[in-house]
Amino acid sequence: MDKIIRIHMSDLSSTVEPAPSAWLGLGGRALTSTMVAAEVPPTCHPLGPNNKLVLAPGLLTGTIASNAGRLSVGCKSPLTGTIKECNSGGNVARQLAVLGIKAVVIEGLPNDDKWYSLHIGNDGVRIQEETELLGKGTFDTVAAVTERFNNKKIGVICIGPVGEMRMNLANISVKDPEGKIRSLGRGGLGAVLGSKKIKFISIDDTGGPGVKVADLERFKTAAKKFAQSVLQHPVSGQGLPTYGTSVLVNIMHEAGALPTRNFTQGQCDAHENFSGETIHDTIVERKGKPKHGCHAGCIIQCSQVYNDKDGQYLTSGFEYETVWGLGADCLIADLDDIATIDNIMDDLGVDSIETAVALGVAMEAGVLPFGDGKGVIRMLREEIAKGTPLGRLLGGGTTVVGKAYGICRVPVVKDQAIPAYDPRGVKGIGITYATSTQGADHTMGYTIATNILNVGGYVDPLKKDGQVALSRALQIATAAVDSTGMCIFIAFPALDSPECMPSLLEMINAKYDLKMTGDDLTELGKQVLKTERQFNLNAGIGKERDRLPEFFELEPLAPHNVVWDFTGEEIDAFWNF
Amino acid sequence: MDKIIRIHMSDLSSTVEPAPSAWLGLGGRALTSTMVAAEVPPTCHPLGPNNKLVLAPGLLTGTIASNAGRLSVGCKSPLTGTIKECNSGGNVARQLAVLGIKAVVIEGLPNDDKWYSLHIGNDGVRIQEETELLGKGTFDTVAAVTERFNNKKIGVICIGPVGEMRMNLANISVKDPEGKIRSLGRGGLGAVLGSKKIKFISIDDTGGPGVKVADLERFKTAAKKFAQSVLQHPVSGQGLPTYGTSVLVNIMHEAGALPTRNFTQGQCDAHENFSGETIHDTIVERKGKPKHGCHAGCIIQCSQVYNDKDGQYLTSGFEYETVWGLGADCLIADLDDIATIDNIMDDLGVDSIETAVALGVAMEAGVLPFGDGKGVIRMLREEIAKGTPLGRLLGGGTTVVGKAYGICRVPVVKDQAIPAYDPRGVKGIGITYATSTQGADHTMGYTIATNILNVGGYVDPLKKDGQVALSRALQIATAAVDSTGMCIFIAFPALDSPECMPSLLEMINAKYDLKMTGDDLTELGKQVLKTERQFNLNAGIGKERDRLPEFFELEPLAPHNVVWDFTGEEIDAFWNF
Repeated sequence: MDKIIRIHMSDLSSTVEPAPSAWLGLGGRALTSTMVAAEVPPTCHPLGPNNKLVLAPGLLTGTIASNAGRLSVGCKSPLTGTIKECNSGGNVARQLAVLGIKAVVIEGLPNDDKWYSLHIGNDGVRIQEETELLGKGTFDTVAAVTERFNNKKIGVICIGPVGEMRMNLANISVKDPEGKIRSLGRGGLGAVLGSKKIKFISIDDTGGPGVKVADLERFKTAAKKFAQSVLQHPVSGQGLPTYGTSVLVNIMHEAGALPTRNFTQGQCDAHENFSGETIHDTIVERKGKPKHGCHAGCIIQCSQVYNDKDGQYLTSGFEYETVWGLGADCLIADLDDIATIDNIMDDLGVDSIETAVALGVAMEAGVLPFGDGKGVIRMLREEIAKGTPLGRLLGGGTTVVGKAYGICRVPVVKDQAIPAYDPRGVKGIGITYATSTQGADHTMGYTIATNILNVGGYVDPLKKDGQVALSRALQIATAAVDSTGMCIFIAFPALDSPECMPSLLEMINAKYDLKMTGDDLTELGKQVLKTERQFNLNAGIGKERDRLPEFFELEPLAPHNVVWDFTGEEIDAFWNF
Repeated sequence: MDKIIRIHMSDLSSTVEPAPSAWLGLGGRALTSTMVAAEVPPTCHPLGPNNKLVLAPGLLTGTIASNAGRLSVGCKSPLTGTIKECNSGGNVARQLAVLGIKAVVIEGLPNDDKWYSLHIGNDGVRIQEETELLGKGTFDTVAAVTERFNNKKIGVICIGPVGEMRMNLANISVKDPEGKIRSLGRGGLGAVLGSKKIKFISIDDTGGPGVKVADLERFKTAAKKFAQSVLQHPVSGQGLPTYGTSVLVNIMHEAGALPTRNFTQGQCDAHENFSGETIHDTIVERKGKPKHGCHAGCIIQCSQVYNDKDGQYLTSGFEYETVWGLGADCLIADLDDIATIDNIMDDLGVDSIETAVALGVAMEAGVLPFGDGKGVIRMLREEIAKGTPLGRLLGGGTTVVGKAYGICRVPVVKDQAIPAYDPRGVKGIGITYATSTQGADHTMGYTIATNILNVGGYVDPLKKDGQVALSRALQIATAAVDSTGMCIFIAFPALDSPECMPSLLEMINAKYDLKMTGDDLTELGKQVLKTERQFNLNAGIGKERDRLPEFFELEPLAPHNVVWDFTGEEIDAFWNF
């Protein structure tokens, strides 16, 4: 069964419809982007009644395929004004798949000032007024909802207080296998859910029809091969499980492209304080978990549980981007401060990249000193969480902070903060930031694999040659992979192992009884990108916005003393496909 | 002599060059926009080293022509990201003309953290470090500079503390004949001057070569006819001199298009409190000046001096836009509060439209109650003037406030606040707001003349018919008039009197020994608009941004219960010329 559930907040009703045949072959990002492009007016206000939030599991979610449990959520972004898709781990994607739900579409705004919760089960949707959990953090919310249903397996999607306040920093949290959360991070998705006055969505897959696989034996064989290719790759099979994503701290420092002190340097003196190796050793010493999956079926296990000095849980899902943003970009050298801030950000429900980069710009503006970890903790708890003027200002994101303080060094593309790889030092990722349909986003086309990690060949990060083609190939492939429900990290085996992509394709064909080829998958990726781009063009965001901020062209980055030197025409060649 | 003076802040030097022949026939807005388009990279950061500030008197400035003393200033705007030209009265335009200066171009940023002043005289430019006047308001700055030179006639251009802090609200102030100020209001021009670390520019025209007129007798005859047409028109000859621009309060209230309570109503119950009639009677009663020119040679005299209850000076240049923004949009019913706020805004150096509309959105967000005049006074003095986080947030302008608070009803076009005419109730002005090359700006094509005041014919304000053609004709004419140094209010006689435009043209021809026709002037206007638009297109601001905010389409405006109902295609037809 392939249901689309629509929730109409304007009259608090819901409807169920079969997915139209044109959308049957779509899942995850391909589906959310196609639906948003079809149904959301590109020039609408992202927090107004005409925006829609579309939730969709991937094509392979709910099967025995490893790493296929990502939930995609799409809408028009209040941060970037572009179309947006984010995906995260957690339990919910699988549960929706088990319920036979292809997509949940949340439409309209309530006509009153009340807040609501949604419950999705096999018997339909229940919309109820919510009062008790308003203002609560995501951890308390997930715990309270779980307790309310007296069912540990209940799925939860929620926003924290920052989403309730409709700030651009706000993300959406998804309950994970440990009862903690994973984040649909970027672009202010949480503000959109908050605009629709939904504090949480609970999901119970009991009695669901389950996930049908047309040829189970064929699927199992392919799934096994696929898993082997993941486990056998040095990055997804060893580097990530051992050191987590923060394995990149030392690597990027060595490469001279670890953005430091609001993107003024490419290396950070204190990098050893928060490297993946240091985090690993600290976790082991404090009896945390160095390996940890973000959803059932994850075999990469790049996540971890980080304990404090007394061996008590401090945070999990402690990612490179966060560690970099606080450690290098804001110069916070104390790992426990970084972990504490990570936990607070998760609890408030904010994008850790946007928050850290916005703080870096605020530090440049003199709002607080670089390196002031305790100041950041106070800023989060006393300003952002309480929606004070300073909290609102930071909550608007990096661009808003830059505008309010008249700062020129504002590392954003399409108003979204640039992540943890300096585009002057890794030019391929600069092309991805510039051309991404969703603002600066490394996950859209992770050229670091080939520019830095020698995965899928090697393209010199400091030269212009080959970067556009590399970013293009990766962005197309990623758009396709994001449609399967797969984790982005399968990109490593996909780039190197001859078994990986064919077995992924084989799984799709075995499940849906299709005869898709590799070319079909590439075509799907292209279509997704073109659909997203057309939405943006119709929203008034054209090629002139496919540019990095001027300061990357004006300020050479130490230690390589490189600037960003692509012309507009060279960047625009990205779209020649 | 037609000099262009360039001031290079990066090495604190200046150069003089003859104006290239292609620019000889340009002045005012035509010159600033042409130079900005030619020399400023459209995607540069407006506060970075590649933006330039161009100051230019109009083609007729410095002659005996009435109302020709406007100073144009152009650059890339930090508020809108578009090209920008603002013009104001005051003494400076005339002084530059007397010095034989066609344009002053301020380029680059200083390489240190010091602040500077510029002095422009007949012997060249002096660049000096400035410390004493930092943080001072515009009134004190003008007075101190005047005193420093011990010369009442010294011209002064300066920024207040808000410009020093590079906020988007910041305007540039120009000393007027009374030693008070006039404002180059919109788009954050003051932030650009602040980014270049220039607190003030003083101008001494002593010994200047003066303004040459090729055929003085012919010029005098034309100037006389021109002045007569201005004085004989009921709006420029009677309405404006008697009641000032606030004569529009009652008119727009009656028309049901006086934006009230953050653009939720078209009429304001308290309109009598701050109507032009009430202001006039109050001024007379308190022995202020009901008539007052903003520059030497002004014969319209729409300005005034408004005294407080004790007969002491409270404010001047007390304009309809400010009175509306505070009185109707923010519901501040006390005229003395409004006047006090006007004076504080002038002293801080902020755009009163952007500030009032941003405050209206902040009131909707609950930052302070609607109608809280004392709260606004505190907000200006304690928050904006001191650059507190709330002050910075408000200082970012209406869009920034809307983003920080997650508000949908944010009345801006291209991030610039919509002024005092609701586009649902006066559809012609909506076309001007949408298509203006500089964000929402009534002065770009003042359709109120024909939609409401029956000047230049009549086009029903509530119907779509004829609005695009009306706005187009007015925008083209305005672009030409803005190039002459003339005040926008000559548009009234220009639209109705057969003598006005021919005598304006005759003055240009007599001064420059030219044979320009009316068609040539129209062609100049078209060229200015096209040049400005091309800059915007190159900056990534295309036709999809020629749109009003969605709420104007969704929310009917009382009392006529009208919505904004132009399609994108209908709006885009504006550019068919």
